[in-house]
Amino acid sequence: MSKRKQDMTATNGVGEGARDLATLFSPRSIAVVGATTNAAAIGGQPLKHLADHGYEGTIYPVNPKYADIAGLRCYPDLVSLPETPDLVVVAVSAHLVPDVIRVAGQKGVPFALVFSSGFAEVGGDGKDAQSRLQAVAESAGVTLIGPNCQGLINISDDIPVGFGAPYGLTYSAGAVSLTSQSGAFGNSLLMALNKEGVGLRHYVSTGNEAATSTLDFFSHFIDDPQTHVVAAYVEGFRDARSLRVIAGRALLKRKPIIVWKVGNTVEGANAASSHTANLAGGSTYYRAAFRQFGIIAVNDIADMADCARALLTGRLPFAGRGVAILSISGGAGIAMTDRCIELGLDVVRFGDDTSRRLKTLMPDFGSAGNPVDMTAAAMTSPEAFGAALRSILEDPAVHMLGLCLAALSGQAAVVVALEIVTVAAEYSAPILVAWNAPHDLNGEAYGVLAEAGIPVYDSPVRSARGLSALAEYAAAVKRYDAAPFDSSAQGSPDDVDLPVQTLNEFDSKQLLARHGVPISREAVAHDREQAVGLAEELGYPVVLKILSADLPHKSDMGGVRINIADADAVRLAYDAILQAVEQFDLPIQVDGVLVQEMASAGTEVILGAVNDPAFGPAIMFGAGGIFAEILEDVAFKIAPLSADDARDLIAQTRVARLLEGVRGQPPRDVEALVECILRLSDFVIAESHRFAEVDINPLIVSSHGHGVKIVDALIKLRQI
Amino acid sequence: MSKRKQDMTATNGVGEGARDLATLFSPRSIAVVGATTNAAAIGGQPLKHLADHGYEGTIYPVNPKYADIAGLRCYPDLVSLPETPDLVVVAVSAHLVPDVIRVAGQKGVPFALVFSSGFAEVGGDGKDAQSRLQAVAESAGVTLIGPNCQGLINISDDIPVGFGAPYGLTYSAGAVSLTSQSGAFGNSLLMALNKEGVGLRHYVSTGNEAATSTLDFFSHFIDDPQTHVVAAYVEGFRDARSLRVIAGRALLKRKPIIVWKVGNTVEGANAASSHTANLAGGSTYYRAAFRQFGIIAVNDIADMADCARALLTGRLPFAGRGVAILSISGGAGIAMTDRCIELGLDVVRFGDDTSRRLKTLMPDFGSAGNPVDMTAAAMTSPEAFGAALRSILEDPAVHMLGLCLAALSGQAAVVVALEIVTVAAEYSAPILVAWNAPHDLNGEAYGVLAEAGIPVYDSPVRSARGLSALAEYAAAVKRYDAAPFDSSAQGSPDDVDLPVQTLNEFDSKQLLARHGVPISREAVAHDREQAVGLAEELGYPVVLKILSADLPHKSDMGGVRINIADADAVRLAYDAILQAVEQFDLPIQVDGVLVQEMASAGTEVILGAVNDPAFGPAIMFGAGGIFAEILEDVAFKIAPLSADDARDLIAQTRVARLLEGVRGQPPRDVEALVECILRLSDFVIAESHRFAEVDINPLIVSSHGHGVKIVDALIKLRQI
Repeated sequence: MSKRKQDMTATNGVGEGARDLATLFSPRSIAVVGATTNAAAIGGQPLKHLADHGYEGTIYPVNPKYADIAGLRCYPDLVSLPETPDLVVVAVSAHLVPDVIRVAGQKGVPFALVFSSGFAEVGGDGKDAQSRLQAVAESAGVTLIGPNCQGLINISDDIPVGFGAPYGLTYSAGAVSLTSQSGAFGNSLLMALNKEGVGLRHYVSTGNEAATSTLDFFSHFIDDPQTHVVAAYVEGFRDARSLRVIAGRALLKRKPIIVWKVGNTVEGANAASSHTANLAGGSTYYRAAFRQFGIIAVNDIADMADCARALLTGRLPFAGRGVAILSISGGAGIAMTDRCIELGLDVVRFGDDTSRRLKTLMPDFGSAGNPVDMTAAAMTSPEAFGAALRSILEDPAVHMLGLCLAALSGQAAVVVALEIVTVAAEYSAPILVAWNAPHDLNGEAYGVLAEAGIPVYDSPVRSARGLSALAEYAAAVKRYDAAPFDSSAQGSPDDVDLPVQTLNEFDSKQLLARHGVPISREAVAHDREQAVGLAEELGYPVVLKILSADLPHKSDMGGVRINIADADAVRLAYDAILQAVEQFDLPIQVDGVLVQEMASAGTEVILGAVNDPAFGPAIMFGAGGIFAEILEDVAFKIAPLSADDARDLIAQTRVARLLEGVRGQPPRDVEALVECILRLSDFVIAESHRFAEVDINPLIVSSHGHGVKIVDALIKLRQI
Repeated sequence: MSKRKQDMTATNGVGEGARDLATLFSPRSIAVVGATTNAAAIGGQPLKHLADHGYEGTIYPVNPKYADIAGLRCYPDLVSLPETPDLVVVAVSAHLVPDVIRVAGQKGVPFALVFSSGFAEVGGDGKDAQSRLQAVAESAGVTLIGPNCQGLINISDDIPVGFGAPYGLTYSAGAVSLTSQSGAFGNSLLMALNKEGVGLRHYVSTGNEAATSTLDFFSHFIDDPQTHVVAAYVEGFRDARSLRVIAGRALLKRKPIIVWKVGNTVEGANAASSHTANLAGGSTYYRAAFRQFGIIAVNDIADMADCARALLTGRLPFAGRGVAILSISGGAGIAMTDRCIELGLDVVRFGDDTSRRLKTLMPDFGSAGNPVDMTAAAMTSPEAFGAALRSILEDPAVHMLGLCLAALSGQAAVVVALEIVTVAAEYSAPILVAWNAPHDLNGEAYGVLAEAGIPVYDSPVRSARGLSALAEYAAAVKRYDAAPFDSSAQGSPDDVDLPVQTLNEFDSKQLLARHGVPISREAVAHDREQAVGLAEELGYPVVLKILSADLPHKSDMGGVRINIADADAVRLAYDAILQAVEQFDLPIQVDGVLVQEMASAGTEVILGAVNDPAFGPAIMFGAGGIFAEILEDVAFKIAPLSADDARDLIAQTRVARLLEGVRGQPPRDVEALVECILRLSDFVIAESHRFAEVDINPLIVSSHGHGVKIVDALIKLRQI
């Protein structure tokens, strides 16, 4: 991934002491600079949409060309306005925008929503123009949204401030607030969520995020009492370091954040970086951060809707991932079971009491095991259906319930829906329904469930995703409650414009050792006999390695000799290594020959760290040796890591199973590995201003009680 | 997976020389046995639905209790009917069904659709009742559908013959014919596909499949000129051996088969087997078979719709998996790119000419690389949009085109839609559109695309699935055209009621060697000096192993000594092995001590075979050693295998990368491995009547040109 220098102070238009964005979504008055009589133009649409939607505040068209527009008095400039508007919409050419913002600042306008394009998204000069605009907004004291954004909609109060057909529509109000880094695709999302029946509260297209970022809106929505779920379409964060704190606050306040981050493949990420002014970043770190910080990552519109639907219930299965499934048609139950298992949920085994009771409530050919198949009997005996639901929910292993009603229709559907609502009121466990009867024929039954806030999915497979989002979110909240994120320590990305210096193996390990990371015993010899002396001190057998920061692949060049058993062998090896390296005749600096103890037996793993431009320092862990090469068996966490983070980092890899001890081998010293990861985390935070990369390969994890040891390491530092 | 004895001859109610199922879907007359005046009852609904839908044939209610029902003359029994109906619907109690079928046979009725439940689905006595019913139908010459099925609908001609609310609805007619092994969930699917805008031709709920199976319907639909795509919801096939031939015919006729097989997880499969009369089977073999035979496997309603939509176009990208993506909003293009890559498609790099031309057709801030972001310019200049489409489609690397229109609305949408249709008519490549504008405001534009058969998806992620289905299907057709499936050789499942005999290592390998599979050089010693003599003959070093069919884990018990270098060492090892095994004092039969050459260097793999009750013999291949234990790195194919099958079997595993030679190791002899897999395939087909299991572990794959060799093997045979 390419790294670019970031101005990290620049994205804090809204931060500590920043304005409350509530006014932005509920302005009492709006000035539209660049207003026009052409209702189809970018400067005409906001006026039309606001009027059409019965906006109750005051609209001030601003354009020296007109005296009035659509019956509203038009002003030549912002200065002439009779009052200070809460919001200025800017729809003029890019080069005119800074002046508008300057005047807005003089007038005391708090917010500017800039539609104008021609900034960072066009590259080159546009980037400079955006930097200047940013500076102007900052000094003018105006909170700027955009530029190159398409607008916002306060759906709760029906206030559309934007251009494009979707701003002319009306949406079902609800408790999901949505941000999008793409204007056009944000429209798609907005309409799709509405079509999926997910009610929205606020929507905003964030454009180039010169001053106000998606994360600023997250912060606002978390505090907004009427927002229960935050959702976002994201191409990349320029500075993601505040994500930990924001996500922590969201967990504390039980406001789930759902993010669709695109650009997950190399190809997609390249497209994202060519398309937006944001740096897409490696999605690797995004995925890692979302998992670490309890953010629900989704990958499609339907996926976002499915998660939102479930999370809006506010019912969280804190006790565990135990799922019960009840269908009136086995097929749906099987499909749901398949998907639940794939998503890592437990389709639990019922207690004997539950099974016994269920058997009495259904025909002999029903199935009382989980998934329960009540068969069509559920339709004919609502009492038995309700009793079955209660029996299942009483089972201590059951934390969530998925109901599959297939295409149940007519009066039976109404009766079943009422029974579900009654039972749901008696229990706190989440209850999700998969049902796809014709809506027009079953308005009453659908209405009964909607009224009670029971989420309905049109496929059992999709409802399983809802359950998994609940389990994932509940687990994240629990983890956070037990151990809030450490926000005291935070690294800074390194300055990518500075040259990089690679430390040789010895210096790299010494630096790590000073931070408490265990390294192999070793010393540097500068002549043959010194090598022998060091070997005698260490005790045979020993390893000799060429020491040079310029030779990362030293073994390939004959620069390493292992298992050296005595003094004569040390002498031979010393000469052989120097000769082998010399014969390549490379312009390298040789710092000596490293004399090292032989590595003890254990599992080889890789431990590393990178300094991501958006996230700052991140730790990588994975399988060493041949596994690393063919399996790409690695996982990442954003530093600093807690002990739980370190354990989860290990657990995400396949090598974790090797560490448990397979084929009769003893279990490895995982606690020492966790400690080592934490030391590395401390190191990268402490050195974040200058470290570019740490590569520890291999780290040997010995059997339980015997610790870990770095056998080889390489550190790249910025020359500051 | 449990194995059950199957009566393999029983499921051939429709097979060679069977009736043409066309009459079943378009009967000129239908008798309903168990007809009733209660229009809500199972015996009343078909009459009502047929009447409501204006069925033009003759309906004969049959019930001795009534003189007429709903204005139709009611007959006391089938014998009294004035003519022989094309179809008899049976809605009477289970115990009365055989008599009805017997009489139907006497009357010459070709088809009976049996709604009655209380057969195999209730287990125990029900299974026997179903066997008897099956025998009655066979001797009566009546082709029986069900029992325990919910009916069928000829959607093209609006003939619903079934019970349940969905049979009262009207669906958009189209070219997809659908089968479901679940009545209720089949209804869900039917309605969901209709809601997704996928037009259907025929639908049938197959129930217990006592005589007519899903595969029989596949066979019929492949031959039905108006069916272009076959879709199915499947819980399990009792006998899947005809799948190869049926799927081959479907590929030949370009009739894609889309299957949603549930019960893919252990939990789901258990639920499936408890819920239906079918044996769910291990989905492992289903997945293997679908891949091998060019069947599109899906896992949700939307997934089925997405694949059907694309495949209905009949445009197949035979030239490759190259995808071009063009969006009017980068976000959608990125999301589509992500998903295309995840699905294994190539989001290709355009040729220089293409890029150069595209650059002239869009604003500077657009993106002319793939994915192309034309930005909103596409809306304002339809000529440039059309020219861009043509430039892309002219690029030889592009085999498919995905267009992302985000929420484009109004007249611009109509213009863009017309342009797409015009260009689509000029090229043969598949063109899919992702678009989710409000339907009610954009009826004209949606209509333009629908009219021209351009598939529209409501999300770019979903449209990527459509492209992948096309690529997958086109590749399967190409493979089939180049090398049709070998249907001459077919194995039979072994008889699971017979006892199993395990062959010892020597006998197992000898049996394999007789089928041309290369094995290690070895012989059996019965005393110490014979062992020495054999070792001298083989040449040192040698391996000694205890030889017993009763000791699969012989090394764990000290029953193996490797790297034995001379005669004295052989004597010591011989005694040590016997002593080690004796000390466990197990009731085992020892057949001697195996003296074996040392295995040469190479990659350890596992090769195996199982005899599946539904699919017959299947071959397994995977990584050996520690990989096998922690990665479950194995793949399966149904026997017999072609050389291409064998290569694909290897390619599906991660060990394939080891075989290519990593870390400077030489590439392995993959061609010898392929040959070995083919020999094993021949073996399991030849011995299918009696083999239960083959386990070759390890098979050593040496470097290129040095072949493969079985080091250990174990065969289980039925004692026939």
